[in-house]
Order: sequence, then C-alpha cells, then structure tokens
Amino acid sequence: MIPQTTLEPVWIAGRWQAEPAPEGELQSYNPKTGEALAQRFPISGDATLQAALEAGRSAAEELRSVAPERIASLLERCAANLERDRDALVDSAHQETGLPREPRLRNVELPRTIDQLRQAAAAVRSRSFCDPQIDTKNNLRSLRGPLGGAVAVFGPNNFPFAFNAVMGGDFAAALAAGNPVIAKAHPGHLSTTQRLAQAASEALVALELPPATIQLIYALPPELGLDLVAHPSLGASAFTGSRRAGLRLKAAADRAGKPIYLELSAINPVFVLPGALEERGPAIARELAASCTMGAGQFCTKPGVSVLSAGSAADAFCAELEAVLRAAPAGTLLSPSGAEQIQASLASWTSHGARLRVGGKPAAAPGFGFEATLCSVSAEQFLAHSEALQSEAFGPVHLTILADSSSQMLAVAARLEGSLTGCIYSHSQGEDDATYDRLAAGLRPRVGRLLNDKMPTGVAVSPAMNHGGPFPATGHPGFSSVGLPGSITRFTALHSYDAVRERRLPAELRDANPGSLWRRIDGEWSRGDVSPRAS
Amino acid sequence: MIPQTTLEPVWIAGRWQAEPAPEGELQSYNPKTGEALAQRFPISGDATLQAALEAGRSAAEELRSVAPERIASLLERCAANLERDRDALVDSAHQETGLPREPRLRNVELPRTIDQLRQAAAAVRSRSFCDPQIDTKNNLRSLRGPLGGAVAVFGPNNFPFAFNAVMGGDFAAALAAGNPVIAKAHPGHLSTTQRLAQAASEALVALELPPATIQLIYALPPELGLDLVAHPSLGASAFTGSRRAGLRLKAAADRAGKPIYLELSAINPVFVLPGALEERGPAIARELAASCTMGAGQFCTKPGVSVLSAGSAADAFCAELEAVLRAAPAGTLLSPSGAEQIQASLASWTSHGARLRVGGKPAAAPGFGFEATLCSVSAEQFLAHSEALQSEAFGPVHLTILADSSSQMLAVAARLEGSLTGCIYSHSQGEDDATYDRLAAGLRPRVGRLLNDKMPTGVAVSPAMNHGGPFPATGHPGFSSVGLPGSITRFTALHSYDAVRERRLPAELRDANPGSLWRRIDGEWSRGDVSPRAS
Repeated sequence: MIPQTTLEPVWIAGRWQAEPAPEGELQSYNPKTGEALAQRFPISGDATLQAALEAGRSAAEELRSVAPERIASLLERCAANLERDRDALVDSAHQETGLPREPRLRNVELPRTIDQLRQAAAAVRSRSFCDPQIDTKNNLRSLRGPLGGAVAVFGPNNFPFAFNAVMGGDFAAALAAGNPVIAKAHPGHLSTTQRLAQAASEALVALELPPATIQLIYALPPELGLDLVAHPSLGASAFTGSRRAGLRLKAAADRAGKPIYLELSAINPVFVLPGALEERGPAIARELAASCTMGAGQFCTKPGVSVLSAGSAADAFCAELEAVLRAAPAGTLLSPSGAEQIQASLASWTSHGARLRVGGKPAAAPGFGFEATLCSVSAEQFLAHSEALQSEAFGPVHLTILADSSSQMLAVAARLEGSLTGCIYSHSQGEDDATYDRLAAGLRPRVGRLLNDKMPTGVAVSPAMNHGGPFPATGHPGFSSVGLPGSITRFTALHSYDAVRERRLPAELRDANPGSLWRRIDGEWSRGDVSPRAS
Repeated sequence: MIPQTTLEPVWIAGRWQAEPAPEGELQSYNPKTGEALAQRFPISGDATLQAALEAGRSAAEELRSVAPERIASLLERCAANLERDRDALVDSAHQETGLPREPRLRNVELPRTIDQLRQAAAAVRSRSFCDPQIDTKNNLRSLRGPLGGAVAVFGPNNFPFAFNAVMGGDFAAALAAGNPVIAKAHPGHLSTTQRLAQAASEALVALELPPATIQLIYALPPELGLDLVAHPSLGASAFTGSRRAGLRLKAAADRAGKPIYLELSAINPVFVLPGALEERGPAIARELAASCTMGAGQFCTKPGVSVLSAGSAADAFCAELEAVLRAAPAGTLLSPSGAEQIQASLASWTSHGARLRVGGKPAAAPGFGFEATLCSVSAEQFLAHSEALQSEAFGPVHLTILADSSSQMLAVAARLEGSLTGCIYSHSQGEDDATYDRLAAGLRPRVGRLLNDKMPTGVAVSPAMNHGGPFPATGHPGFSSVGLPGSITRFTALHSYDAVRERRLPAELRDANPGSLWRRIDGEWSRGDVSPRAS
C-alpha cells in the first residue's frame, strides 16, 4: 500500500516512502482544462538519489544469480497487472495527457505496451539478445550480459504507457537484459507513472525478486539528473525527450564514460517526387495531414517537413493539405509550455522566409489546445537558413518546402540533420525511379528508417524496426529503442569467456544447448549442442 | 611512386603529395640505439585535413554503389601485397619499434595482420556483420550499413602491423563495412605506415576503387585531431592509445555526437586463488613473468597487477617471480618517453606504499631499454590508494597485491577500474570453487574477457573474442575491436526499410537470398529465401 503523506511517496529500495528532503514539488496538469491536478509529488534530493543508486547497485549484483525464467515471469506479471488495471490506467493517462481514451489509450497504446512486455519476456526465454558465440577451436565463448549496474530510464511526455519510464520500452529492454531500473517519471503524467509503479511493485513482490529491481523517482533538480547518469555505480541511461535536456545529460554521461541512449528531436522529412505528385498528390496530402495531426502532432516520428517540386501539382497538393488542416480540430498539447515552444519555432521559421498558411495560434478553448498549422517555404530559403528552418515544432505543425527542381530536392536532403525517419513517395509505375535512386542514396545515411509511399507515424514493435537514427535524432546511429531483441542489446555488455571451465560458464555457453537457443558455433547459427569433438 | 620531397608526402584523395603547409615535422626513432631515423615526416595543417575530409565524404558516397565483392577483393589484395612486401615491412618495423624480426614481426604479427584482412574479406562476402532482419508481416527489413562518412583510425605504438591505422584491425573493419578510412599514423613507426599505405594504394589502383577510399596523414597538431573526430562529414573514429590522448578525442567527438571507439589503458588483473597458489604457484609465477615481459610488456592485455593471499605459498610465488624477472633481459620500449612514463607510475606506486622488488630503472645500454620490474603492495594499502596504485605502467612492469584473506581479494576486485581482461587461477580439483564463484561475480562486470588458468596476452582473432571492456578500458562496454564480425559492427549504422519496394532494397534484404547469407526471417535464422507467402 502507498502510505498517505502530503507529498506522494517515492519508491526506493522496495519501499514506498516519503521523500525525506524534497527540493520542491510538482503537479501534473489536465491539458483539456489547463488545471493542475490535486496530487503533489516531490522533487527528490540527493539522499534519495544516493539511496536509489546504492540499492540499484546491490540489486544488479543480486540479479546476476536470478534465473532468466524469473525475469521473464516478472515481465509477464507486469503485463498481466496492466491488463488488470486497464480502466484506472486509461482514466489516469487521459486526465494527465488529454489523449483520447479510445482508441488511442485503451485500444492502441496500452495493448502495445503489454505486447512489448510480453515480447521482452519471450526474448528473455529465447535469449535472442545474448548473441552467443562459441569458438571451439580457441575455446573462446561470448555473450551479451547485464551491465553490472542499474539503468536510469527517463520517460518522455508523449506516450504515457508505451515509453513510460515504468513499463515502457526502455524499462522492458533494460530488465530483459538483467539490469535493475531506476525510473525517472515525466512530470506530465506523474499519477499514471505512480500507478504503473504500483503494478510493477506488486509483480516484484509476487515473484520475490530483489525489491530494488525497479525504483521510481518523480523528479530531480537538473544537477542531480546529471549526477545520476554519471554515477560510477550506474550501468547506463536511456532518455527520450527534448534535445536541450538530452544533450545536457549526454555531456555528463559521456564525461563519466557511461553509455547513454538518447532519442531526441527529429523532423522526419517526407519527399513527394514529381510523378507521385501528379499521380496522387491530394491523396498523399490527406495522408500527410492525418499523420501530422495524429496525437496532436506529438509523435517522435511526426513528419515535420515535406519537400515537393513547385508547380501546379504542388499547388493542388498544398491546397488539399491546407483544406484538411484548416478543418482539423485543434490538437491538445501535453504541457503548459508546449504552445510557447511551438510559437518560438514558428517565429524562427517565419523570420527566415517561411509563410504561415494555416493556424499558428493556441486554440481559444480552455486547456492547452493548438491549431493545426501549416507553413511553407521555398527550397532556396531553406538552403539559406537550413538550421533555423529545421528546428522542431512539437505539435500539429508542418512545413512544406517547395523546390524548383529535383536536383534542388536533393540539395535539401543533403542539408538535413539526422532524423528517425525519411519517406519518399514515388510514382507507382516507376516514373520517378531515377530521381528516387539519387534521393534515397542521399537520404539513407541521414535517417534510421526509410519508407516508401507511407507516413512514418506507425512504429511497429518488430525486430526489423529502427526507431533510431544518426545524431541529433539519437546519440548513436547503431541502436534502436523499439524492436526486440535489438533494443535489449543496448543494455548489455559484451562478455567473453576464455578457457573458462565448463560448469562456470553461463548456461547459454555450455556445450549442451540449455533450450533451443540460436547460437553461432564456429561461424554457423545453430540450435544444437556443441559436438564433443567439434574442434 | 612516392615523389621525392624534403618531407615525406601525405596520401590524400588518391595522390601522394607534399604537405602544402606543414605545422612541423617529426621522425621515428630506432629504439635499440635511441637515434632518430633519417626520414622526415610532416605534421599536417588544416588544408590537408579539410581536403582529406572532403575526399573521404565523397568516397563514402561512391562506395555505396561499389559491390561488396570489390571491397572483399580490396582487402584480399591488401593482404597479398603485405605478403609480397614482407621482408621490407619486417625490416622497417624492426628498425622503428625494436620488436624482434622473428618470431614476433615475421611469424606472428604480420601473418595475423594478413589473416585479419582475409577474415574481413570473408565477412564482406558472407555479409555476416550486416545482421539482416526480415519481418514479412510488417514488410519491415533492416541491416547494418555503412556510416555515410569516412572512419578516422588512430593507430597505437605497440603493434606496427596488426593495429596499424593502415592495414590493421580497425582499418579492415571500417573498410569491410563499406566506409573509407582516413588513417592517422603513429609517430613511432612512420616509415612502416608509409610502406603499408603504399601497398594499400597499389591495391586500390589495381581494383579501380575510389582513390580516397584510403588516405594517410602522419600527424596533426592536437587541435586538428579534435577537429577531425568532430567533423560533420566524418562517420566515426577509432583510437587505440593512451588514456590522456584518447579522452581528449572522446570529449570532442562526444560533443559533436560522433561515435568514437577507444581502446585505452588497462591493468588486466590476475587473481591466483589459494588452492592454485599451493598447487602450482611457481609455475604460475613463470607464466606471469613471461606474459609481463612479452613485447617488453607493451601489450594492451599485459597483466599489470596480480592478487594473491599472503602466506608461505605467496612467498614462494613471489620469490619465483622475482627470480625470473631479475634474470630477464631489459625490454626495449617503443618510444623515448616510455621510460619517463613508467618511472612516474613507479614513483606514484612507491609513494603510496608499494615496495620495489626488482628492476625499476632504464637499462644502461643505448636505446630505450627498461629493466623488468616488480613491485608489491599490501591489499590494505591498495584499498587505501586504489586510484594511484592502478595507474598503468606501459612496459615490463608488474605489481603484486598481497591480501590477508579471500574476502580482501574480493574487496580489491570491487575497487578495480574497467579492464580489457581479468584472469582467475584456481585449484585444478575444485578446492577454490566457492571463492571462484564470488570473485568471478565481482570481476565479470569489470572486464571484457574473463580467463581461467591462463594469461591474457594472447588475443585470438575470433568471433567470440572481446578485446574491449568497460570504461576506462574502452569507451563502451558493448564493443570489441578484435574479432569478426563484431569489430565491423562498430562502423555500421542500423538501416531499416519500411515498405520499400523490392528492387530498391539492398540485395541482402530482397526475398531471394543473394548468396547463402544467414538472415533472421520472422525471428528464425535462415539461409533460404523469403517464401512468397511467408506472411
């Protein structure tokens, strides 16, 4: 049971406890009304941080002797508890984020979160992320093991379930690899996060796992956040959120030599090639408008810019886009500061030659509404001010870039910062193929996921997903935060065993295959045992 | 042909050319005599750096349309040219490093280097590093592709062939992934590096590959080195060398969001448990002495400290170690500054309670000789001054730590920084097993490779090798610089393809398997095609 205190209790070392020395307090808001919610949460101080770190260090040691089966059960129990608590969770998340109960929260995001936990449990059982390598000739064996310290997870504002610091993707991946989690809630949905932590704590207790396997802090003063990611006993950090906050954490973690995985801003360009524009421009415009306004445009993969060749087909495309966006209801932003940030981006865009075509203002209604907004700019202007014009506007806001020619479209592509996604729409019968090839070659190294003829806002939880990309979309172009087993790999260390005696090896590396694990034995993938005379 | 100039020419954009604006010059030394060698090499200026970066960027683009088969051929041609040039290379490296022509340079290091290049060629053909993932249900496919920019490789002093910035392990891995290389030579063996680059340039020309696929700069002022690793057009960097220089580069690369792979200092602890000490202490001491003096102790994996339980068996061990080291010839250090650095470490050790037992001085002979050196310290002292007492002494120098008990050995382990390797010697019949289990649990997260009953100085080029480890041994605990295909993975970006039309996919991801590549199709490893109705 969560004890009653004035400020809500943190969850440290297996106990819900009052923050002993709060540095301040905070509340979540109801974005529909703009009103602060009643519950008050502490900003934790150093004593709590140190206690969490010490308990996390010690839990990391204890987890080394916990069988994978029990970690898998924990993840499944977490999933089951989310199903059990569905109604309360959906209500809480709706109140704190303004996201629709249905279909978004109940029918899409919560099931996806549950599915991620179950996929992680399956990956723990199959050990697919361990990548066992066995070299019989040299008697060398390796796998990916836990980091030896807790993983700090900083959740973002835009997915109160699927990316939550508790129960979200990074949480599931870090646990699956055998690491404890120190979760740092997002201030936008503190009560939802507390409910998720309550569900997780019940799972931990039921399975008799080390109590500090999962801990929760709601908030930290900025300097203590830096201390957390740089702490010697920490294994790694994962952060999804704003570029400014993420880069501060990155600098601190980098100085300490601690891995940090970041998912920062991205503008996710959409290129519509001339043949596609002629063939089906208005249909693509409607798709684009839907993708830009989904979740009030607050998706990491929201298409922030589109690039077209100017002309009558582009005019028709823009007219359709304008019409749909003008008719769209205002989106509800997640936080009180959202509108201000968007307006700052719009001011920067327009002062660098962009023209406002639709929207541009907070909605008149109470709460954090913002109009669906469209700007356009010439490619010439974009090329002259590409840094200012690719600042992210996190909301239902889009910038169309009009190029004079295909080669100017390529020049725009060459100026883009790293993004999570890049889309190219091309003529269905191959009329754009020559341009496609040149554009795709330029775009490929700048994005994590390259799409054809579809919008990027759906992010499947698939082994072939890359929800990642080159800096500044993330901190490293080799890792995805979505998709198993890859996302788990981030939270592992490479462990080689050289002439280690058989009984001392992890089960995954012994001669006898402990299940039907895929292992690479002398260069070939196999589900069999190491043959006694394989060398 | 290399043109004659006063200063040796750099190799930029396919041309051997005089450095237009040298910032200075440098020479390598003959460590056996201490004399500077005749050839003079330029320290390059910014114009050369920018030219190399621009040519590297453009070569990265060109390489995207080069078939893997041609990259494999390049690596093989490089290997063949090394075989062809063996005599001259061995002479040059011997003169510049003092390492024995035989067996070390001719029979061990050069064949290993040739083998690495051939293994890399095989990995290019098998695409084993690409990790192709195919999700037929979502029509999502992913693989590891090149970074989109050149890789800067900074070679170390201690392996003039196997880790050379040209032809060494990082070079082979970066090329195998499809990236151009900008090599930064080590000042210790400039002429050898030039010869290697000449052999590489002949291979490039013969295969008609983009001329800037490989480039060579001998030296840069420190601030230009920082500019190199942080440059927007660079893909990544790899550095093997001193912690001080490596951390400066890391800070610059991190700020720019550019991946950098570091292999820095490591003390590679060896624990000898009480049963093993009783059973075969003197034999282990002889093994340890051989490992510490191999290559004059200038191996990244040299055991820098050993940890024993004090007592009569430890006395016998130390007596044997002392005797063998006292009788060992002085080792030849690689650089004029080597002795000074070792003496600084020894001074720090002895001022923190260590006792000098053998050696401790530069050798009297001409050149850069240094006596085989042994110090010892109590575990109590070590625990009180663990930072000072684990500073690396790069040379034939070892520190023995004498513990009062097994639990004090565990306390020492808990205080160790991240290292490349950790060894545990234990009783052959299981007498040490309980201690082993506790010690291995503490040591595992601190080292990349855990060994039983053997010394760490042999580093097999194997898929199961980890020549890596937690910070500060390297910059990230998940990567190895030795062992294919893992070492290649470092120089890749994760590329996901979402609904991309079949003919536009990389060959590795099309339905038809282009060779007999291992691919994970809907979660299962397979060498087959995607079945037409797999979804």
